[in-house]
Amino acid sequence: MLTSIVDADHIRADPTSLERYGVDALGEGRPPDLVVLPGNTQEVAAIARLCHEQRVPLVVRGGGTGYTGGAVPTRGGVVLSMERFTRILEIDRTNLLAVVEPNVITADLQRAVERVGLFYPPDPASLESSALGGNVAECAGGPRAFKYGTTRRYVLGLEAVLPTGEIVETGSKAVKNVVGYDLTQLLVGSEGTLAIITRITLRLIPKPPARAALLAIFVDVQAAVDAVTALIERRVVPAAIELIDAESLRAVRDQLGEELAPPTAGAMLLVESDGTQAGVDEEIELVKQACRGVGAMRVTLAADEAERERFWNARRLISLALRATGLLKINHDVVVPRGRIPELFGVIDELREQYRLKIAAFGHAGDGNIHVNLMVDRENADERARAREAERVLFERVVALEGSISGEHGIGFAKAPYIGIELSPQEIALMKRVKAAFDPNGILNPGKIFP
Amino acid sequence: MLTSIVDADHIRADPTSLERYGVDALGEGRPPDLVVLPGNTQEVAAIARLCHEQRVPLVVRGGGTGYTGGAVPTRGGVVLSMERFTRILEIDRTNLLAVVEPNVITADLQRAVERVGLFYPPDPASLESSALGGNVAECAGGPRAFKYGTTRRYVLGLEAVLPTGEIVETGSKAVKNVVGYDLTQLLVGSEGTLAIITRITLRLIPKPPARAALLAIFVDVQAAVDAVTALIERRVVPAAIELIDAESLRAVRDQLGEELAPPTAGAMLLVESDGTQAGVDEEIELVKQACRGVGAMRVTLAADEAERERFWNARRLISLALRATGLLKINHDVVVPRGRIPELFGVIDELREQYRLKIAAFGHAGDGNIHVNLMVDRENADERARAREAERVLFERVVALEGSISGEHGIGFAKAPYIGIELSPQEIALMKRVKAAFDPNGILNPGKIFP
Repeated sequence: MLTSIVDADHIRADPTSLERYGVDALGEGRPPDLVVLPGNTQEVAAIARLCHEQRVPLVVRGGGTGYTGGAVPTRGGVVLSMERFTRILEIDRTNLLAVVEPNVITADLQRAVERVGLFYPPDPASLESSALGGNVAECAGGPRAFKYGTTRRYVLGLEAVLPTGEIVETGSKAVKNVVGYDLTQLLVGSEGTLAIITRITLRLIPKPPARAALLAIFVDVQAAVDAVTALIERRVVPAAIELIDAESLRAVRDQLGEELAPPTAGAMLLVESDGTQAGVDEEIELVKQACRGVGAMRVTLAADEAERERFWNARRLISLALRATGLLKINHDVVVPRGRIPELFGVIDELREQYRLKIAAFGHAGDGNIHVNLMVDRENADERARAREAERVLFERVVALEGSISGEHGIGFAKAPYIGIELSPQEIALMKRVKAAFDPNGILNPGKIFP
Repeated sequence: MLTSIVDADHIRADPTSLERYGVDALGEGRPPDLVVLPGNTQEVAAIARLCHEQRVPLVVRGGGTGYTGGAVPTRGGVVLSMERFTRILEIDRTNLLAVVEPNVITADLQRAVERVGLFYPPDPASLESSALGGNVAECAGGPRAFKYGTTRRYVLGLEAVLPTGEIVETGSKAVKNVVGYDLTQLLVGSEGTLAIITRITLRLIPKPPARAALLAIFVDVQAAVDAVTALIERRVVPAAIELIDAESLRAVRDQLGEELAPPTAGAMLLVESDGTQAGVDEEIELVKQACRGVGAMRVTLAADEAERERFWNARRLISLALRATGLLKINHDVVVPRGRIPELFGVIDELREQYRLKIAAFGHAGDGNIHVNLMVDRENADERARAREAERVLFERVVALEGSISGEHGIGFAKAPYIGIELSPQEIALMKRVKAAFDPNGILNPGKIFP
């Protein structure tokens, strides 16, 4: 039946493909029974209709860079890979928007729009391999979300295929639209469980003409957070404020031989400012003052764009360094109100001690979104069990701090057992009714989000 | 039964009240059978449950400033007035957020947060009387939405009562949250048809330290729009760009004796810039250049804050002046991609001619959201009929221009017959299924949004 919809060339059932499409960046999951690579929206609609009628699980896949297993099957079925949807259809310089197919790579769009003086801010760490459709499905963030907001803020409209095979268009090219329910915003972050995104209209903004980056070293996390608080008090909103803890700095030193900070350093902040040159100069001065005011050990302004790149590469090396330890890196992107970051680090210290775990924490201090990485010996069953316990306690404590168990990565199947820590049974039941309104047969990405 | 939930004091059934709660700013609607003024969330929940069980229409009312009849009954039932929910519960200066009850007046919150150096940008024209709950329900905008976005961008979380009586909390105090479907964003703009908002957590931003306003006069709308296009090309995003057409200027002159521009003027732009003083100075200079570059007749920078206030008062006088004509003002807040504003004004000219109507247009040029006011003699049945026809053609043409029939006011019952111009039957059916997921008995604000 599928062969009447797409060429046999675009259907894969060989063991290598099934295995490859059975995992994403999480490294877990089950292989599909089939992989299909549709070439246009009509084919997507026909495939959805078929799966709906046959009650076959249908899992949409973009770049496969997600950390919670959102793009892989949990119970077989069909993986619908959007990899042939790679065109930037339009960059509209008058109306500051772009229309793209879902498998355009995030960084490719960014480069394309920056060439004409425009800017697409969302910058997930995976931007060189993540697909915009996946960014929309997960509501990707990144360091710049502090100033510019997450993917949600840039999605004006979508073309999407419902699991029942109907094609809908949500939103429009207008930057304001209050006609009916905002299905666009409902689909953003819905993790491929409500509809299949086939085209995206994105809002762009003018490219900030100037930028600068600054590294500041502190004796401990508390001092770094005090610097962030001082910035907020001065009403300064840099483009990004990244916080890196001692454990993360140590991994970079030990694994990659990069000395980001002296061994006595307890924390590092990487601050980026952008805007007009005058605005950047003024802001960077305030950042320096704030860091020095709380007793920073060292404050270094990037002398030029090359040094700025070096700072950011250092930041990006952390995940690589943590992986190079050979330990299993269980990455949680918890988020708390910014003022409660010190309490969150207190919780992390408690977990280190109580569960005898190595934990490296770093992330977006500006918006309280800290990546907490439990570093676990794969071969040590007892340590794995302790990590499981620590994970649950972390989530409970984060919710008690008025935060959320996920700021960027979503729930997928990896965090599904924990959703009840944050959401009430009534809220989960309501979300399931919304799911059923889109997907009465429950074929689209089953086993995700809900426990 | 209701008297077992709220004091008799807080139930109104006298004819004056029923009449008063039977209209909002649209000036149409049907009176309710009862008005109830609950004092807390538990009472709201009990009232909802009762109406759900008895299948009685339940209409939530805030400030009653809406233009599409969203807050008034179409078929009797209970009006639930939130007027006792007036407390600002929290202004959190560390985490830059406020927690408010839904009937806090928009401008009251703005003044309260500005006193501590913070800023709540959404600025609907009705801000001195509109309630934040209504702002959220309708996704209110205003001039500053061009730079700062609409209400949607500031809502972090909600406490809401489902029509079935359950209390849910959506979102959190964290600025990022991707746990489950974004019910917060789904409720924003849902026009009181999905749930009753009882508490709102709003994101705040630092108050811009400096601002300035500039008036520019042009021979025609085309020249004014050319100036806006030139600004966009220079990648300038002022806080607001308001466009006022000749008909609106004439009404202000004739009705209020205020000479905003010489009689030969065809259009006026009011531009506001905010940010650091250096940034504002730089931006205003670019705005002047852009206006002069397209041959503005006059460009005037407000000399001080008092003159700036005068400029904005002039802008706010327009609606008053139009109402003072004694004509019926049928206000439509259509929106097109910004670059298509000249085409929209072309459509307006055609409508003026073809349907022999007086039409005054003004609004938010920055985001393409133009308020098109059909000025109609109430006593002239033929003119009213021509206005009805023109209205439909306006909506059709706006959608053909890739725009939307409403950028700010919502659909209510006034625009419900036209929703099919913008949305497909599949999209409307999907929205109705979402509605049913929240409100199986269809008691909440019936007769709104859907035809």
